[in-house]
Amino acid sequence: MNKEIIQDYFKTLQDKICHSLEETDGFGKFQEDLWQHVDGGGGRTRLIENGNILEKGGVNFSAVSGVVGPELKKQLNIENEADFFATGVSIVQHPKSPMVPIIHMNVRYFEMTDGTYWFGGGIDLTPHYVETEQAKWFHKQLEKVCENFNPGWYEKCKKQADDYFYIPHRGETRGIGGIFFDHLNEKSTRKSKEEIFEFVKSVGELFAPIYTYLMKINADKDYSEPEKKWQMLRRGRYVEFNLVWDRGTKFGLITNGRTESILMSLPPVANWAYNHSPTENSEEAKTLSLLKKDIDWINY
Amino acid sequence: MNKEIIQDYFKTLQDKICHSLEETDGFGKFQEDLWQHVDGGGGRTRLIENGNILEKGGVNFSAVSGVVGPELKKQLNIENEADFFATGVSIVQHPKSPMVPIIHMNVRYFEMTDGTYWFGGGIDLTPHYVETEQAKWFHKQLEKVCENFNPGWYEKCKKQADDYFYIPHRGETRGIGGIFFDHLNEKSTRKSKEEIFEFVKSVGELFAPIYTYLMKINADKDYSEPEKKWQMLRRGRYVEFNLVWDRGTKFGLITNGRTESILMSLPPVANWAYNHSPTENSEEAKTLSLLKKDIDWINY
Repeated sequence: MNKEIIQDYFKTLQDKICHSLEETDGFGKFQEDLWQHVDGGGGRTRLIENGNILEKGGVNFSAVSGVVGPELKKQLNIENEADFFATGVSIVQHPKSPMVPIIHMNVRYFEMTDGTYWFGGGIDLTPHYVETEQAKWFHKQLEKVCENFNPGWYEKCKKQADDYFYIPHRGETRGIGGIFFDHLNEKSTRKSKEEIFEFVKSVGELFAPIYTYLMKINADKDYSEPEKKWQMLRRGRYVEFNLVWDRGTKFGLITNGRTESILMSLPPVANWAYNHSPTENSEEAKTLSLLKKDIDWINY
Repeated sequence: MNKEIIQDYFKTLQDKICHSLEETDGFGKFQEDLWQHVDGGGGRTRLIENGNILEKGGVNFSAVSGVVGPELKKQLNIENEADFFATGVSIVQHPKSPMVPIIHMNVRYFEMTDGTYWFGGGIDLTPHYVETEQAKWFHKQLEKVCENFNPGWYEKCKKQADDYFYIPHRGETRGIGGIFFDHLNEKSTRKSKEEIFEFVKSVGELFAPIYTYLMKINADKDYSEPEKKWQMLRRGRYVEFNLVWDRGTKFGLITNGRTESILMSLPPVANWAYNHSPTENSEEAKTLSLLKKDIDWINY
C-alpha cells in the first residue's frame, strides 16, 4: 500500500466530514483555501464560520514532503539525510453554544525515504459542561473501534490521551480525553500496515457520526450569559493548551508550517479572567472536578 | 549591595507605579493578592480591571528562592547544585481603547549561592495603531536612559528588543519594540554592580511617566467597531507571542511558577479570524507595515 492510497483516502475523508457537518449545521458552508508549501506539497484548508451550530472550525487536509530539517531530525532522533512525506486530516470545531462540546480529531501518516513509516492520530472531546452520560457514550464509541483493532487497545490509547491532552500549569485535562496514538507500524503493533490503516480509517469514519450526534442533542438547549462567560474562559484554556503544550502546533509553528492552517484550532473569541474560580456546587465546579486524568468513563 | 536592597527597591517601585496608574486611570483600583511559592519566597500580584482607561493589567512583584532545578540548570548551563534568588517587577497593561497602546515592562535580578548574579529587563510598546510620532518619542525616552548608562547602549538594547519581541510564525514584531537586556553584571558590562543597579532603576522609573503620558494623550480619541475589532485581533497576536515564544512565560509555566501571576499578561478578550488581512492603504495596513525589525525610530 503506497502513500497515494493513504493520501487519497484522507482527501475523501475530508470531503465526507465537511459534507456531514454542513448538513447537520444546516447553514454554515466550508470555504476552501488551497495552498502549497515552499518545500513541496500543500493542502486544502476548509473553514466554516458563523453557522447555525458551528461558530468557527476547520477540517484540514495536507500532504507535504521535503528534506528532514534540523528540528525534525532532533524530534525523530536521526542523523542521516532523508526526505519525508506527511499527510493527514486535522479537525477542530468551536460551536456557538456552550452546551455543545468542542471537538478535535486528527489522523496522519508519515514516511521517510529509508522506508520508515508510521500512523498517528486521535479524537478528544472538550465539553464546556461535562455531561457524564455523553462522556460515557463518547468513550464507548471509541472503545468499540479500538477493541476491534486489538484487545486492550482502548485502555492504552485512552491513557495516552489523558496524558497528552493535559494542561500542567492548570492541573486540568483539556476536556474528557478520548484516544491518542502515534508511531504505529508493524514493529510497534505487530499488525500489518493494511490492518493499521484500517484502524486509522475506522477512527476517521467515527468522527462524523459522533460529532453530528452531539451537535443534534445539545444545540437546542437553553443557555444564557453565565454559560456564555464560562465558555469563553474554557476557550481561553483551549488556547493555552494549544499554544503552550500541543506538540503538533508548536512543531508546525517552529518549522515554518502554514500558520493560518495550524491556528485554525484557535477559537474565534476567548477570555481570560484573573484567578477565576466557579462557585461551589455549581455546574461549572462540577465540570472542573471532572477535568481529571484516569476517570473510567466506560464504567462511570 | 545585597539582595534585600534590590528587593526593597522593587517593592517600592511597584507601589509607585500602581499609584501613578490609578491616578491617571481615575477609576480603576489595584487589587492585591499575596502568595507564597512552595519552594520559598512569594509575591505581591496586583491586578487592575475595568478602569476608565485600563481594561485589565497587572503590576507584579515577586521574590522567590530555591534550589536550581533541572529546567533552570539546563537554561543556565550549569551542572553543580546551587540555590538561587530571583526578584523583579513585571507589568502588562491592556487598555480599553484601541487608541491606547499595550505596554510591558520588566526589571529583574537573579543571584546564585556561588556568587553569580545578573540584572535583566526591558520595556516594549504594542500600539494597536502605530502613531509614528509617539513611537519616536517613546524610543527617545529609552535612548536617554540607555546612553546615560553607556554610549551605544540604546542601539544594543533596541536590537535585542527587536529580536526578542518577534513573532516568527507571523513574520511580525509584537509592537514597535523598545529595549531588552539580560545577564548584566560586572563581567558583561565592565560597570560596577551599583552602576548597573542604577541603570535598572532608571528603566523602572521611566515606566510611569511614559505610560501615563501615552494614556493621557490617547484615551479620549474616538473609535468605533472596526478599531475595536482590530484591537481584538492584535490582542490575539499578543497571546500568540506570550504563549508560544516568550521565554519568561514558558519558563514560568514549565517550572511550576504561579500560573495566575504569569498569565496576568493575557488580555481579557482576544479574537482570531482565519487569514485576516487589512484592506490596502488602511490604518491597519499601515500599522502592519510598521511591525518590522530594524526601524530607526529615533530618526524616523
